Amino acid sequence: MRRKEFKVNETHEQDVISFLHEMSYGFLATKNDNIYPGILPINYVYFNGAIYFHGSRIGEKMKTIKQYPTVSFAVAKEYSQIPSYMNDPFYACPATVFFKSVIAYGKAVIVDDLEEKCDVLNALMQKLQPEGGYEPISLADKGYAGQVKATAIVRIEINLLNAKFKFGQNWKQEKLDNVSKQLSERGQQLDYETTQLMQRYCPHAQPNEDLTQR
Amino acid sequence: MRRKEFKVNETHEQDVISFLHEMSYGFLATKNDNIYPGILPINYVYFNGAIYFHGSRIGEKMKTIKQYPTVSFAVAKEYSQIPSYMNDPFYACPATVFFKSVIAYGKAVIVDDLEEKCDVLNALMQKLQPEGGYEPISLADKGYAGQVKATAIVRIEINLLNAKFKFGQNWKQEKLDNVSKQLSERGQQLDYETTQLMQRYCPHAQPNEDLTQR
Repeated sequence: MRRKEFKVNETHEQDVISFLHEMSYGFLATKNDNIYPGILPINYVYFNGAIYFHGSRIGEKMKTIKQYPTVSFAVAKEYSQIPSYMNDPFYACPATVFFKSVIAYGKAVIVDDLEEKCDVLNALMQKLQPEGGYEPISLADKGYAGQVKATAIVRIEINLLNAKFKFGQNWKQEKLDNVSKQLSERGQQLDYETTQLMQRYCPHAQPNEDLTQR
Repeated sequence: MRRKEFKVNETHEQDVISFLHEMSYGFLATKNDNIYPGILPINYVYFNGAIYFHGSRIGEKMKTIKQYPTVSFAVAKEYSQIPSYMNDPFYACPATVFFKSVIAYGKAVIVDDLEEKCDVLNALMQKLQPEGGYEPISLADKGYAGQVKATAIVRIEINLLNAKFKFGQNWKQEKLDNVSKQLSERGQQLDYETTQLMQRYCPHAQPNEDLTQR
């Protein structure tokens, strides 16, 4: 990352974790023997400090991971698009998009332990189907035991987590206030949330206690 | 891709193109000299049959691309989550998510031609800011000429485009109808669109004329 203004620091570490819990899918990049790098969208769960996903034991994904366990995993969400005219009546250049993105770099390990597999599958279900409506996954249930064995679960052990949240941190207060006002007036989906995040991550607005607590 | 039911065939090629026009960002995977594969979220425009994106000329992205021009680029969108209880009152296993994903494999080329750069930047603006409100980008405008030169534009020349749209194509008609009905009753965001796509991509429902036109 070239511009360090957007890099999320320790003050907002919990926001990064919350974001990983909030999002349901990301993209797994892998090394391989092909001429093109590997990339795949996957549903995941952030659980016990790792990224977990599941798949078929006989698929291409598992073969690649066994051979090349160092992977990168990225999640991103777009917030408001900031049209150029909010900052300039003439030129297109100021047009931009605010977003959150997180990239985890780590080692992908295929999980063999059946209890860990159950825990992960339950965590995944809890995330994707919080309203319930199913029996918890357990090895004691014969209807589940075979399925748990047949499902491949991968744990990405995170070595490095880079988060970039872009919400105008490089702007002066006046510009932030001006765009914030225009977003409130526009009132499209995510505009309100965007204005809240602009305020939250604005460096001028960092509460002092946060800075001293680092 | 292991399961060929979800692969989008020639019949729906236009749907893949429309999807690339609809989405605003994707993930670029790159080969590199690091232990981790490269991955980056980027805004893009699908223009003249290629994926284009822009960035800073001095960033890490451009350095990597010059050295390793074969890249993979992925776009995905989640539609309805299908809770397990829509298909089974007891077991969690049938829980799934419907989605569209497209992966383009190709060669990344840094664009030097200033006219092509202008065309791409205008196409990008038209996509991200369709309501206008700016002067079209042109080399004749001194306010733009320097900016166009300073902006790096990359063209991904697509060699292979794989699309996977998952909307229950492997289900029997009765199951499709049953889940479709429950999604209509639930009426969450994207549920209506999902039922339309379930119908559109259901292999039992392919109109004969489409099949013969292949």
